[in-house]
Parts: sequence; structure tokens; C-alpha cells
Amino acid sequence: MIHIAIIGFGYWGPNLTRNFHNTPGCQVKYILDLSEHQRKRANAIYPGITTTEHIKDILDDTSIDALVIATPVYTHYELATKALKAGKHVLLEKPMTSTVEQAQALIELAEKTKRVLMVDHTYLYTPAVQQMKNYVDEGLLGQLQYVDSTRINLGLFQTDVNVLWDLAPHDISICRHLLGEKPISVQAVGVSHTENQLENIAFLTLFYPGNKIAHFNCSWISPVKIRQMLVGGDQKMIVFNDLETTEKLKIYDKGYTVLPQSDRERILVDYRTGDIMIPKIPQFEALAELAKDFRDAIDQGKAPVSDYLSGLEVVEILEAAERSIKQKGCEIRL
Amino acid sequence: MIHIAIIGFGYWGPNLTRNFHNTPGCQVKYILDLSEHQRKRANAIYPGITTTEHIKDILDDTSIDALVIATPVYTHYELATKALKAGKHVLLEKPMTSTVEQAQALIELAEKTKRVLMVDHTYLYTPAVQQMKNYVDEGLLGQLQYVDSTRINLGLFQTDVNVLWDLAPHDISICRHLLGEKPISVQAVGVSHTENQLENIAFLTLFYPGNKIAHFNCSWISPVKIRQMLVGGDQKMIVFNDLETTEKLKIYDKGYTVLPQSDRERILVDYRTGDIMIPKIPQFEALAELAKDFRDAIDQGKAPVSDYLSGLEVVEILEAAERSIKQKGCEIRL
Amino acid sequence: MIHIAIIGFGYWGPNLTRNFHNTPGCQVKYILDLSEHQRKRANAIYPGITTTEHIKDILDDTSIDALVIATPVYTHYELATKALKAGKHVLLEKPMTSTVEQAQALIELAEKTKRVLMVDHTYLYTPAVQQMKNYVDEGLLGQLQYVDSTRINLGLFQTDVNVLWDLAPHDISICRHLLGEKPISVQAVGVSHTENQLENIAFLTLFYPGNKIAHFNCSWISPVKIRQMLVGGDQKMIVFNDLETTEKLKIYDKGYTVLPQSDRERILVDYRTGDIMIPKIPQFEALAELAKDFRDAIDQGKAPVSDYLSGLEVVEILEAAERSIKQKGCEIRL
Amino acid sequence: MIHIAIIGFGYWGPNLTRNFHNTPGCQVKYILDLSEHQRKRANAIYPGITTTEHIKDILDDTSIDALVIATPVYTHYELATKALKAGKHVLLEKPMTSTVEQAQALIELAEKTKRVLMVDHTYLYTPAVQQMKNYVDEGLLGQLQYVDSTRINLGLFQTDVNVLWDLAPHDISICRHLLGEKPISVQAVGVSHTENQLENIAFLTLFYPGNKIAHFNCSWISPVKIRQMLVGGDQKMIVFNDLETTEKLKIYDKGYTVLPQSDRERILVDYRTGDIMIPKIPQFEALAELAKDFRDAIDQGKAPVSDYLSGLEVVEILEAAERSIKQKGCEIRL
Repeated sequence: MIHIAIIGFGYWGPNLTRNFHNTPGCQVKYILDLSEHQRKRANAIYPGITTTEHIKDILDDTSIDALVIATPVYTHYELATKALKAGKHVLLEKPMTSTVEQAQALIELAEKTKRVLMVDHTYLYTPAVQQMKNYVDEGLLGQLQYVDSTRINLGLFQTDVNVLWDLAPHDISICRHLLGEKPISVQAVGVSHTENQLENIAFLTLFYPGNKIAHFNCSWISPVKIRQMLVGGDQKMIVFNDLETTEKLKIYDKGYTVLPQSDRERILVDYRTGDIMIPKIPQFEALAELAKDFRDAIDQGKAPVSDYLSGLEVVEILEAAERSIKQKGCEIRL
Repeated sequence: MIHIAIIGFGYWGPNLTRNFHNTPGCQVKYILDLSEHQRKRANAIYPGITTTEHIKDILDDTSIDALVIATPVYTHYELATKALKAGKHVLLEKPMTSTVEQAQALIELAEKTKRVLMVDHTYLYTPAVQQMKNYVDEGLLGQLQYVDSTRINLGLFQTDVNVLWDLAPHDISICRHLLGEKPISVQAVGVSHTENQLENIAFLTLFYPGNKIAHFNCSWISPVKIRQMLVGGDQKMIVFNDLETTEKLKIYDKGYTVLPQSDRERILVDYRTGDIMIPKIPQFEALAELAKDFRDAIDQGKAPVSDYLSGLEVVEILEAAERSIKQKGCEIRL
Repeated sequence: MIHIAIIGFGYWGPNLTRNFHNTPGCQVKYILDLSEHQRKRANAIYPGITTTEHIKDILDDTSIDALVIATPVYTHYELATKALKAGKHVLLEKPMTSTVEQAQALIELAEKTKRVLMVDHTYLYTPAVQQMKNYVDEGLLGQLQYVDSTRINLGLFQTDVNVLWDLAPHDISICRHLLGEKPISVQAVGVSHTENQLENIAFLTLFYPGNKIAHFNCSWISPVKIRQMLVGGDQKMIVFNDLETTEKLKIYDKGYTVLPQSDRERILVDYRTGDIMIPKIPQFEALAELAKDFRDAIDQGKAPVSDYLSGLEVVEILEAAERSIKQKGCEIRL
Repeated sequence: MIHIAIIGFGYWGPNLTRNFHNTPGCQVKYILDLSEHQRKRANAIYPGITTTEHIKDILDDTSIDALVIATPVYTHYELATKALKAGKHVLLEKPMTSTVEQAQALIELAEKTKRVLMVDHTYLYTPAVQQMKNYVDEGLLGQLQYVDSTRINLGLFQTDVNVLWDLAPHDISICRHLLGEKPISVQAVGVSHTENQLENIAFLTLFYPGNKIAHFNCSWISPVKIRQMLVGGDQKMIVFNDLETTEKLKIYDKGYTVLPQSDRERILVDYRTGDIMIPKIPQFEALAELAKDFRDAIDQGKAPVSDYLSGLEVVEILEAAERSIKQKGCEIRL
């Protein structure tokens, strides 16, 4: 049995609690939140779990194996450092840390202490992303050419990070998962309409080897909610619409072939438009899969899907994106 | 009666011909096309119109008042120069020319010869764009904050220009029309998947005064066709979906207010979500309106909506975008 | 404090339990289910609630004020009779009973025992239906002309009732609520594709005074899920799409006027197509409102929205529909 | 070369003219319309075709082989009779005639005069219906169970026929084509909101052998335009949405199997939900195919797809439906 403490019971903490509560082999023993209101909420739902506002209670409790940290990102580094030093395993909410330096320091510490350090990129555990990953790995799409994601709505303005730090971790982690390689460089633009100068609308581009490109449109100020990702290969293309309940993925047998020709000035393209397939994909809760993955990483030493390298890459790209935005879009090499 | 010659009877020429043919006060006398096949097609539909492959026939015919030029962009400058020098009025297909220099030279020549020089930015004459323009001018949207357009499908690869030169003129001319001001700078990225190195997927950003931003997602390699533009103000926001037949515009009473506060670190935002309105907009063919606008500019000296300044700005931005793409996204000041 | 027993913890019982559990002034003391598995499920979620398989435990417990009955319809009459005779208030799942006779007997008994007898027509408490009711009452739609509802999907075949008894209670109760009058007659057709001869696809028509008509398309064998109701008046028309999350209601300023004319053979109609409005409607859980309505009916003698007359009318219409189906669609007067 | 006269140049006549004009082997020589305005319209588009208001001109012209009649339905019988007697082939707009008697008389006359008599059920020539026909014939859907069609919008009120005569011929002819058998009986209800008592909203049901059912929802007073047909089999089901441009057909691998069991009171159903397929279907104009079919029927004696039996069955069903409506929905045996 793995004994777990949930740190932070705000927006995401309750979801993590519920899933770890329901995961065989896991027992949630503590819920920590600084707000009395949130602790009361936690108590009402889980009378059997101890609530506290003192991290020390948890760190000192030797029966606790792991901390699941769902607090604001600027607190991640300090909390995770303490937890690892106290010999606890750590699952961090995305994004992993505020800086690459912090992420690297945590990774080193985890390796030294031989503790599991994972980052919660929930999307990697969704049926839709797993299905897309299978398609890509099987070569169904042919040579990948682009990822084009739109993740916009009238969202809650964060007060400590811009819209890319809030929304793009999803897209970046999915891209890393699907493409299996790191971008060469990063480029981003964005603007803020508030005093704190945090961008509320921003566009992030990743350049990959072989003319592959990924582009993410992120906004907190869109009147419509869109969660759509196009994944284009030269054989087939996928539209992933996460707002659809039963038709999340559509596989288009669409593409084109550039025909060989002597005349270099002209280009002859042969287009193909075929059937569209909407696969039946299994339905399960991604967070439950993540909880099991964390459990198995602790118990059996299994390499988790959403590992710290994924967490690190997301932070590297976000840091680079922030620099690019300040330079009005100049490319930042990774 | 204005006597008109249509130059180029390929993709767009037939539409121009049909509309000028039906415009009171206009008479199409010539259709020029280098291809015998196209001339035959023209003859079959319009037995009363003379077809030719020799521009000289038209330039020398003193009864001809105006040339409507719908040929590839690289031919625009030469054809328009000849026409203006021969004392003809000129309507050029978008984009106006291949370079800013050419556009400026044509403008000078038109001013010197006192001929009308217009560019066919058809969208400016659509009911939807006119309605949006009214909303913006009335202040319905409040302070404009962004334009976010997606114009993608499995489109025909052009062989002489990249995807931005093909698709972005629509978005740029609409933006200019709605915002009524020129961007400060331009930024773009894109990649090509063909030997000729012309980008088939590209993203263009325009920076305007007051933290306004416009972003255009243009692609010839999308499995789905999307023609969607979001126009966001701090009072209301519009979604313009050009693929809808009867519900092209949706006006969202959505927004947020940043509340004043002493604590500079935090930001307090008050969100608003109200009704959505889908206005009934009149239905008419935009190209017919453009034809009348060209006629009235010639006949009555009326300033046309889609004037050469609009044409010039589009070319300026496209030229800057091309430079930005070569520099992997660096900002180009206009 | 009203003490409640939930009878039946299958599909709908858990929702009722959760809502009564959260309703101030109510306390769920018992959950009854004949299946040990379901009782264990109930125990796991609500350790503080007693589970039982014996209705007698509940009937004999004088601290219990009310029974909320969510068992198969054929058991409703017997359970509700026992409960009323034991002096308990009763909320019955829809449809109220299997026959009109049973419904009438229960009503008499409730009046005699002065107990509250309510039927759970949840839809009457939804924000969308309440908003439609307001529009109708304000006269926004003008003279009502028709209701046209489609309620189809690949649904669970019931083993004791046909598709109309399963799905049409929603439409019938909404119609009664909106129109405020009883249909003159009922007509229905349907077919079965199973041995038990229970219709799995059926079409029900209600005829109202003044040429008003209501038509319900109900199916368990549709590949797509549709929950759409059109409500047409001579001034405006509503489309209610219950599968939409934020745009459930669309108000169309559409209609026609029959113009007066001398020539009786011809008819001159003036059509109107105006704006479409999508109102922002409040978001709350309908079942929570129903729970409060039941509580207030018991506590304060308030007349509930979903009263037994509504329950009776639904059963009358379903009974008539069944007779009509047997007669291949002949009209049955109510 | 078949020489053709178009009778009626109102709503549909121009489409027929254009298609016969473009059909190799056909030449349109006359366009007849009683309105001078329509004859002028015809002249403007087709200067080479003679316009007339006198049917005698056409009947007497021995060079004319065939009449294509697109006039109001009440004129069909007289015009077609004259044409057949004059030795001309006849293509009639749908519905074929106002009564079964008239249809039968025309058929007899056509057989006697050995002339082609066809009815324009255009839908039978659409790519989508042809594709569905293939699927049904191949057995892809398994055993057919139902057809459920919704054909509604704010349509033009006809002044001589009700909404079923206007819209249902499409659905009836498609059903006949797909099922390949005749319904056993017909049932319909509807109401009128105008003085002339012609129903503007109506629901038609066809009963087929083997518990197959077809249901058509037809309305001129819907705020939304819907053209959707579900075709359900026990193996697969089709959704045909005619308003979609590229995704008209969706094939659902959905269904259920009734499991054998000893206990007759219960029914055990095994549900299946699989992939969805959107086939690429060819794009061509249905009316052009119909024109060729008429030509080949005349020229080569080929049996046309949309033959007079199809026309007759449509009229039989409409006549029965009208009787059923008068009897408030009673079944009418065919």
C-alpha cells in the first residue's frame, strides 16, 4: 500500500484526490491546503482523510510514501525539494517548475535520492492521445508534417503565469509524445491586455527536424471554446476535437504527392481525398491511468509515461517561448 | 457605358466576367486568355464577347475604358503599366503586385494618368464583413483587442507564390478595413514540404498600436476546410464563420473587466457571459458590389472601398512576412 | 428536517440520493435495494446511510417522513400505496404508474391521507425548460402552433415497457408545462424488432385545440443521439437542443403571416426571417430544484411544479398511445 | 439527336433546361411558359431556344421528340395525355399526377403508344442515394429495420397541395429505391394553420413487411432547415445529411443482437458500437444523370431508374396519406 499526501485542494487537487482514493494499492492519508475553507470541503467529502495546513506534519510522517503536489507553479520547486529530501516520491502538477534550472535540480535530486519524480501531463493518458500515438507509431499517417492546435476560450486569467504556461503544456507534452523528438527551436508572440503584462493571447511555434512544424494558438479571451488539434502526415491526417464526446478523432485519408518532373520552376501535385474514419476509442478516465502509472513507478520501478524528461522539456520550451515573446518572435534555439 | 476587357479567363476571370456582364452601365467587350481552351470556353458562354490572345488588340482599341486583370500575380505590374499608359482604368486581382516597389510605381502612374486603379479584395464587399465593419464603427465591440483567423484546407498549391500570398490577402484586407490603421510590424513563420521551397503552411502575426494583435493561420495541407475569424473587443466579440450559409456572424456578449486594486501583484478580473446574437444579414454577391464600385469610381470619381492603398498595404505586409519567415520569425517593422 | 428513504439504487436512485443528501432540510436515512451489490455501492459512497432490502423497516420507522421511489414502473403502485398508507409522503420516478387506474387510486389516497404525492418529471426543473416556459407565458412566441421533438439514440431496451413509456414522459410533461392545456386526442405508431413485442421505435402525436400539434419521435435504435425539440409559434420559434452545453436554446425571429385576400383559392403568405438569439441561461442542476420543491411541498404545503396531475396526464397519454399503436395509428380521444 | 421542349420555366424548369441543354444527344428546341416574364428570362439565357405560350406549337412540331413537363401538378395529366397522344415521350416533374387514376391512365396510354413516360425523382440519381443503394444491396446494413427522415424548413407554402405532396415524394421514392418493395399500409397526420386547410406540417408513416417502418417528418414551418434521413439495419446504420457538402453519409457500425434465452419475460440485448465511416462519394449533378437516363430510355429502350411505377407508387401513397390525415391517422391499406 502506498500512502499519499495531496498538497493543494484547489481546482485540480480534488480530481487527484478522487483518483488516488480509487486506485487500488494507494491510500490518501493527508490533504494539505492553506485555506480553511478548502480543508473543510475536503473533510466533508473524505471524512477519513486527515487535513492539515502544515507541510511538516506530512514530511515528518514516515508512513507517507509520496506527495502529489497541485499548488501554484512557483511553489513546486521548494515543495518538491523538501519532499524528495524527506525521502518521498513526488508527482508534480504541470508545468513542472518555473525555470529550467529548478527542473534540472529536482531531477538531479530525484536521481540521487532514488525517488520517483513524475509530472502530471494528464493528456498523455487520454484514450484519444494514446490512439493517435498508436497511429503515428504504426506509420498510418506517413511522414509527419505538422501539428496545429487551437486551445482557446474565455478562460480564467492566471495571476502568476501567462496563457502559454497555463495552456501550452498540454500541446507541448502531446507533441513530444507523438513526435518522439525534441524541437530544434522555439518561436512565440503574444500580447497582454492587463496591467501585470502577462500575455492572455499567444502563439507558439516549434521547429522540428525535417521541416516539421508545430503551432499552438492559446487564448484566455476567445468567445468560443475550441480544443482542436490537427496532426498532418503525408499519408493521412487526424483532427482531434477534444470537445466531442464520441467523435474525438477523425482520420482523413487525405494528402498529396509531389510528382517528379524535369521543370524545376513548376510543381506538379497529385491530390488525394478519400474516406474519413471515426474510430471507436475506449472510454476511461485519464487521471486514473496516471495514478496507476505513478503507483507502478513507485512499486515496480516501471518507467512512467509522463516522466520528468517530459516535464523538463515543457519548461525548457516555455522558458524559450517567453524569451521569444520579449524579442517579438525571434527564434530561440534549444 | 463603360467598356471593359477581362484579362485572364482561368479560375477567377469567369466570375469577374459574369458580374461585369450583369452590371448596368458596363459592357464586357473582350476576354483575353493565352489558352485556346479558355477562349473557347469564354466563347461558348458569351458568344457576343470578342476573345483574343493579344493584349495589343485591347490596348489599341480606344473604345475600351478599363482592364480587369485576373492573371498570375507576376504579370500584374507589366499588364497594369501598359494599360494605364494606354489610358485605361485598371482593376487588379489580389495581391496587387509581387513587390512593394511595383505597387508604388503603379500608384504613381495611376495618379499621373488620372486613371482609376483598384484591387479586387472581394471580401470587403461581402455582407458579413460590411456588417462587422458597422459593428466596429458603432463601437459595439468596445476597444478591439485581437483578430484571429484560420483559413485552411487541402488547397491547390500555387507554383509561383507561397500560401500567405495566396490566402492572407483576404485576412489582411479585412483587418485593415475593420481596424482602420496600419500595423506597426509584421512577423511570420512557415515551412515548405515541396522542392520549390514555397511555404504551404504559415502563420502571420501583425502587431498594432495599443497591444492589438492579428494572427492568421494559413494552410494548403489541412484535412478540414476552416474559414473562421474571431474579432475580439473588450465589450463584445464576433465569430465570423464564412462556411456557414445563414449564420455567418455570431456576436458574443462576452468579456472581462480588470478591476482596479492596490495589490499590484494580483489581478482581479470580472468575467461576463451573456446572450449570443446571430444577426440576419442581407444576401448579395460581393463581386457584383465590387463591379459597381469600380464603375462608380470611373464614372463618378467616387473613392472605391478596395482602393490601391489597401492593395499596397497587403503587398507591404506580404513582403515583410516573407522576410520574417526567412529569419525564422523575427519582427519586421513596416 | 425531513427524513427520507430512497427506494431503488439502480440507474436513477444514486442521482436522487446525491441531491436529497445535499438539500438543506433533508436527510437521507435509508437506501433500499434488493440487490446486495447495489447496497454495497450505496454503503461505500454514503457510510452514514442505512441500507436495507426490507421495505417494512422503512414503513415501520416513524421517523421517516418521505419515500423517494426509483424502482421499475410496475412496482410503483404497490410501493406508493403502502407508503401513503403508512403516512409517508411520496416522490415517484416517471412514469407515475403502469395504468391510469393506478394513478387515480394513488391520487385519491394521497388526498385522503393528506400526504404529498409528486412525480419526478425532472425536465420541468431544467433552466432551459423554465426559460422556454417564461417565453411562452410572456407571449414571445405568439400563438403556439406545434411542438416537434426527436429523442433518439442507441438506448437501453427496457424489458417491461416500450420506448414511449421510457422516453416520451419527458416530452409529454414538457408539452403540458408549456402549453398549459390537455390534448384532445392521441395518436401513435411504432414497431418492435424483438420477441417481447415491445416497440423500440415509435412516433406519438398529440392533437390540441386550435390546430396545435405535438409530435414525438422516440427510438432506442438510432445510431446518433438527438435530443431536439422545436417549439413553433406564429411570432417566434425555439430550437431546444439538450445536447448543447452552452447553446441549448436558440430563438428564431422567423415566421409568416397569411395575408387577407379576396381570392379564396390562392393564399398569400408573407415570410419573415430575422435575427437569432441564443440566451444565456442560468446553470443549475434540475434534480436539486426538484428535491427542494418536494421538501417545500411537505414543509410549507407549497404546490409543486411536477405535481400528480402532471403524472396522471402522462400515464393517460401513454395508455392511449399504446391503444393507438395496437390499432395502427387510430386516434384515441382522451 | 433528341429534340426536347421544356414545359414550364418557373422554379425547376431552368434547372431541367440547363441540364438537357448540356446533355450530349439532346437539343432543347422550345421553352413554354404562360408568363411573358419567364419567357423573357428564358430568351435572355438561351437566345437559341424558341419560347412560346402555346402548347399546340410544340405538339404540332413533328421534329419534337419529347416533352419535359415542370408545371403545377394539377396540369400534369392533361399535358402528358396530349403529349403522349401526339407521339411524344414525356418526363414529368414529381409528383406524377394529382390522383392514382390519372397516373394509371397515363401509364396505359404510354404503353399503348409505346412512348417513354418517366417521372423526375431527382434524388434517385444523387451520388449519396446511389451509394446507399449499393450498401443496402450488398447487405452491409444487414436486415433493414427503419427509415426515419426529417425534411423541414421555413418553406414556401404551396397553394394547391399540402406539405406531403410537396416534400414527401423525395422520401417515398428513396424508400422504394432502397427497400425494393411496396409498403403494406400508410398512415399520416398533419395540421394546417391557413384558411385553405392545406397541411403545412405533417407526419407520414409507411408500414412494410417484416416490421419495417418508414417515417417522414415534413414541415414548411420549421425555423431550421433539416434534410436528414436515418436508415437503420441490424448490422449497420446510415445517417444521410443532405445539407453536408462533403460528409453526406456516415456509416455507423452500431447495432444490437437479441440473445436467445429461456426466460421469455426478459430480453437480453447485446449492444455494439464501433467505428464510424464517412465514405468519399463521387460528386456529380443528379439532374444531369436523369437527363441521360431519359435520353437512353428513348434512344436505346433502356429501363429508366425513375420509372412510372415509382411515380405511381408515390401518388398512391400520397393519396392514401391524405385520406389517413382526414381520419386523424387511421391506417390505410394499399
